[in-house]
Amino acid sequence: MIEAGIIGGAGYTGLELIRLLVRHPQVNISTVTSRRYKGKKVSDVNPHLFPFIELEYEDVDTNEIADRSDIVFVAVPHGSAMEYVPALMERGARVIDLSADYRLNRADYERVYKREHTDKKERDAVYGLTELHPEVADATLVANPGCYPTGAILAVAPLVKSGLGLGLVRQVVFDSKSGISGAGAEPSENSHFPNLAENIIPYQVTAHRHVAEMRQELRRVKVSFTPHVIPSIRGILTTAHVFLNEHSSKTHEELERIYTQFYKNKRFIRLRNGLPSLSAVRGTNFCDIGFEIEAESDRIVVISTIDNLVKGGSGQAIQNMNVMFGLDEAEGLWFPGLVP
Amino acid sequence: MIEAGIIGGAGYTGLELIRLLVRHPQVNISTVTSRRYKGKKVSDVNPHLFPFIELEYEDVDTNEIADRSDIVFVAVPHGSAMEYVPALMERGARVIDLSADYRLNRADYERVYKREHTDKKERDAVYGLTELHPEVADATLVANPGCYPTGAILAVAPLVKSGLGLGLVRQVVFDSKSGISGAGAEPSENSHFPNLAENIIPYQVTAHRHVAEMRQELRRVKVSFTPHVIPSIRGILTTAHVFLNEHSSKTHEELERIYTQFYKNKRFIRLRNGLPSLSAVRGTNFCDIGFEIEAESDRIVVISTIDNLVKGGSGQAIQNMNVMFGLDEAEGLWFPGLVP
Amino acid sequence: MIEAGIIGGAGYTGLELIRLLVRHPQVNISTVTSRRYKGKKVSDVNPHLFPFIELEYEDVDTNEIADRSDIVFVAVPHGSAMEYVPALMERGARVIDLSADYRLNRADYERVYKREHTDKKERDAVYGLTELHPEVADATLVANPGCYPTGAILAVAPLVKSGLGLGLVRQVVFDSKSGISGAGAEPSENSHFPNLAENIIPYQVTAHRHVAEMRQELRRVKVSFTPHVIPSIRGILTTAHVFLNEHSSKTHEELERIYTQFYKNKRFIRLRNGLPSLSAVRGTNFCDIGFEIEAESDRIVVISTIDNLVKGGSGQAIQNMNVMFGLDEAEGLWFPGLVP
Amino acid sequence: MIEAGIIGGAGYTGLELIRLLVRHPQVNISTVTSRRYKGKKVSDVNPHLFPFIELEYEDVDTNEIADRSDIVFVAVPHGSAMEYVPALMERGARVIDLSADYRLNRADYERVYKREHTDKKERDAVYGLTELHPEVADATLVANPGCYPTGAILAVAPLVKSGLGLGLVRQVVFDSKSGISGAGAEPSENSHFPNLAENIIPYQVTAHRHVAEMRQELRRVKVSFTPHVIPSIRGILTTAHVFLNEHSSKTHEELERIYTQFYKNKRFIRLRNGLPSLSAVRGTNFCDIGFEIEAESDRIVVISTIDNLVKGGSGQAIQNMNVMFGLDEAEGLWFPGLVP
Repeated sequence: MIEAGIIGGAGYTGLELIRLLVRHPQVNISTVTSRRYKGKKVSDVNPHLFPFIELEYEDVDTNEIADRSDIVFVAVPHGSAMEYVPALMERGARVIDLSADYRLNRADYERVYKREHTDKKERDAVYGLTELHPEVADATLVANPGCYPTGAILAVAPLVKSGLGLGLVRQVVFDSKSGISGAGAEPSENSHFPNLAENIIPYQVTAHRHVAEMRQELRRVKVSFTPHVIPSIRGILTTAHVFLNEHSSKTHEELERIYTQFYKNKRFIRLRNGLPSLSAVRGTNFCDIGFEIEAESDRIVVISTIDNLVKGGSGQAIQNMNVMFGLDEAEGLWFPGLVP
Repeated sequence: MIEAGIIGGAGYTGLELIRLLVRHPQVNISTVTSRRYKGKKVSDVNPHLFPFIELEYEDVDTNEIADRSDIVFVAVPHGSAMEYVPALMERGARVIDLSADYRLNRADYERVYKREHTDKKERDAVYGLTELHPEVADATLVANPGCYPTGAILAVAPLVKSGLGLGLVRQVVFDSKSGISGAGAEPSENSHFPNLAENIIPYQVTAHRHVAEMRQELRRVKVSFTPHVIPSIRGILTTAHVFLNEHSSKTHEELERIYTQFYKNKRFIRLRNGLPSLSAVRGTNFCDIGFEIEAESDRIVVISTIDNLVKGGSGQAIQNMNVMFGLDEAEGLWFPGLVP
Repeated sequence: MIEAGIIGGAGYTGLELIRLLVRHPQVNISTVTSRRYKGKKVSDVNPHLFPFIELEYEDVDTNEIADRSDIVFVAVPHGSAMEYVPALMERGARVIDLSADYRLNRADYERVYKREHTDKKERDAVYGLTELHPEVADATLVANPGCYPTGAILAVAPLVKSGLGLGLVRQVVFDSKSGISGAGAEPSENSHFPNLAENIIPYQVTAHRHVAEMRQELRRVKVSFTPHVIPSIRGILTTAHVFLNEHSSKTHEELERIYTQFYKNKRFIRLRNGLPSLSAVRGTNFCDIGFEIEAESDRIVVISTIDNLVKGGSGQAIQNMNVMFGLDEAEGLWFPGLVP
Repeated sequence: MIEAGIIGGAGYTGLELIRLLVRHPQVNISTVTSRRYKGKKVSDVNPHLFPFIELEYEDVDTNEIADRSDIVFVAVPHGSAMEYVPALMERGARVIDLSADYRLNRADYERVYKREHTDKKERDAVYGLTELHPEVADATLVANPGCYPTGAILAVAPLVKSGLGLGLVRQVVFDSKSGISGAGAEPSENSHFPNLAENIIPYQVTAHRHVAEMRQELRRVKVSFTPHVIPSIRGILTTAHVFLNEHSSKTHEELERIYTQFYKNKRFIRLRNGLPSLSAVRGTNFCDIGFEIEAESDRIVVISTIDNLVKGGSGQAIQNMNVMFGLDEAEGLWFPGLVP
């Protein structure tokens, strides 16, 4: 059994780790921390987890967590993760960081997140988009991707990063629509039901921080990003408006071949004949992808859907863990979505 | 492996059976029928089930289904089930009928459903509320309970059916609130988004057919039932207004003891300290129960919550199958709810 | 023109007063107060009100408000209203208090709200359910009813308070379902979208404070009350389970006559042939009522629907103002609901 | 009084015309037609309209409608309107057609809608986007714009059609999110609550017919359009990704000036400092607009919001009527949105 620690187990990301790990046949949760709920049973605070976890929330020394764990999931806000990661790694634990702290190089991080990165050591974190980064298998530190970048990058990676796609794409605009759970468990203006119901809220429409990850992974094409929250709990649907370079038109079949080949044997990527929607991925680690070519135009519309808390967060983290420990990447994650 | 056939695999009940059975370690789905989608792959019609089921929908002879199956789930509308059940049983299959056709005695059925019962043989169907009917274990035909009766009966059974509760209750009014998936996969006036969103729709407020099941199981107390649909996909929350007989007041602790004792070892019943809500049972086979006593009154308010498609339908059917085949009753059904 | 002041103009009740008053042909808003937004334009803080109101939020002396106003709406939380009302009245303003502070007699108030009532003067406040209290016309202080009591009392008043209904009813259980806007503009656990969507939340199921108003208005019958919040912004649907005294059964026609006669000329009460739902009253001051008699039973189910912020709050307050100033009671309130 | 006839009064567009016209001080509704509900009172079929309209639905001769009416609103599906319009006009009625039948020139219409246009006469219909087409004042036939084109065109018209904007814009991609009421009153797959709730559905992402109207009004720039439906009843939020020509960058202040000047005295256009959302326009004829400039990029993001049934349909039709009859364009339409 893999002993897994969770730092920050009361937020949505932490809770989703628990929801998924309690049915993972190879994992035992060693520790769940929360300052706020210290001493309370996890399943008292979160009745849906009864009787699946016996543990109490703890506020315990980082070394202690490392000692108890083969792998530690760090599920705290960006800026806080860098306080835990160095100690965990020095103590020998492998780490999957679900915050933004190790996703970008230092310079980009400090520019985008407008704060100093206090971990001065070069860590060689692997960007944990497993489908694109097989080197996750050997990583000791995985930077789990942001929710928006996961859906956005997977939507267009075959067009941008495959040999067949080389030089095909000039520019991409990602117009994303996310469920509100991405904003966390804490009530806020945007999550206030009367504000969000019967509405859709665009925000940071030209300057959301997640665009930095997208640009890092999709070098050589111009990338823009505009997010919205929709009146749904889970899910991100990304509409990628892809603009081709001159003279690079492709037929539907050619594009299909590029996608199929690129995602061959990637079990969590499902290419759709039609357009995907959020329901089929609800609660799961799948990323569904479909596309259409605009006639007499340089534009392709690619749609991707994920569950922001699973493939866009905790599920992907567990997928990374599986790969790091030599398990089937789908272990504990292989079940259909909650439809309807 | 248990070979399981599903008659009526394109409605919500049938699809939920598939969603749950594909991860049941002891079951193989032998057949899924649908006249409408005959010849199409189940996972083409329902993309969330890809790649979990390889089968095509078939329109196949009832005997053939029986031959292929150890157990057959009949997931067709009431009135249709009785066309399949006799042939299935004569051919030796065990049957779980998810329709209403075998839940009531013939006279009640014909009165309540206003149609002749064409199966003239006495079948000794067991009412499949496993927690109350251990005889499910030996049944060849299980009448799977209605969604509303499941939540309603479980909410008050300890007060009505236990030795300690004897004579306690005079009258119960079940005021239930259901997600719209209970109305099925076919678009209708009530399921039309602009009609249901920002609304709650009471219907058949004094004469819903499900009250007959409640009365059959809760003899000796006066039972009324008023259902509503709420703008949610899944779940039934039942508010049971329980009126006590004179001189029969109980303390909170006494009632708690009655519930705890009655549901001892019933793994899918979770007694709550506070009041349950729908989220903790979403996607699961749990029934959560909590209650409050009204001061200086004869009224107790008991709240129960279930997922109408799982404990109120297909999950309970699988729980019944587990019991019929001597498996752990929770096999394939033991996972936490989708929160948030 | 009637000069109207609003104390507490940043909460939902205050904003709804503004939304309605800006199109009232006989009213000019003299003042809107808010400590939090003092100095900001009302329409900057609330863009939907642009360009309908030019005023800034003020934090102004109570006497000053009274001097500027013929009528003052007090739209602050209970416990705070009693700090304003005495000064306003002594300065000669007529007052409509939308809080609970003047709805109950002193003893009941202090018991139910668990606080001292600091206004020691006997004020003779009129309970502002205009349909039942024509004495509103002469009132100087109107206690505007609570949202739940409005829908509940109107649902059964004809059966309980009319001559024809005398002795008819033994007991009533009000099972109410409310949109979340009743909980106010401040984000909270219950209003957090991931908690409320796909859910329904029962709360204070035996001991909600509003039951005191219901009992005060419906003397002689036993009254219980159980509220829930539903995933909707506006509206309260109340399911009144009405239990008759022995030997007092009535036909549908007889009951209809009782309702029709009781609500004759009450323009905001609409008796329905079928069952009402929330959409038809959305944004309006109507209360829609329908009922069914349970066969072979002592139970009648009466359903009423209101918009909690209009008939259940600010609209009713304006209706009261209209009556107090001798206007048509529907002035400024006579328009159809927002359907769909 | 203006006598107004409505052909097709049972769909959402027709009902919204009634909802708005019953409080229009200068209009009397002369006729409402519906084949389906012929002979039934409008307010029996639509309880929210009681007691605001006394009429019954009729199935009456087109000439008769023309005779009874100064203006006729044609609110039937595209393809059907052209059956009524010629007769109405020959009989001397002025007509506002809410279908697509007269929005495009004949050739474009037949290509886009894939059907013959059977009205062979040249009608000189005016495209009824009043803010851009003052010639509405003299029109005898107004082609009321589509819901998506209204929000899309208004979002970028100042950048494309003003003198100051000349040559500024190279390309626009409209990514629109619509409430489901745009799909009509008839239940459908997309409007089925379990399909739409907790979801967002992209459709016709490269080839929606409404793009033809956008291109007709926004000549000289390249226009693409991708619609989605969101789990809301009303409203369209359009995210316009605007790509500038080289060397044409503008500051925020310069753009603001372009918008302010272009929409000077257009009372239903509200320029926002921040980004608009759907709630502030709910139920109203407003179009709210805001924008952001992407740093170091050629992209501007403009957001517009409308109520699809009001400014995107029936409200705009009434605004057109007001202009045609020399009334204040806001007559009957001047009230704030339903917030919350």
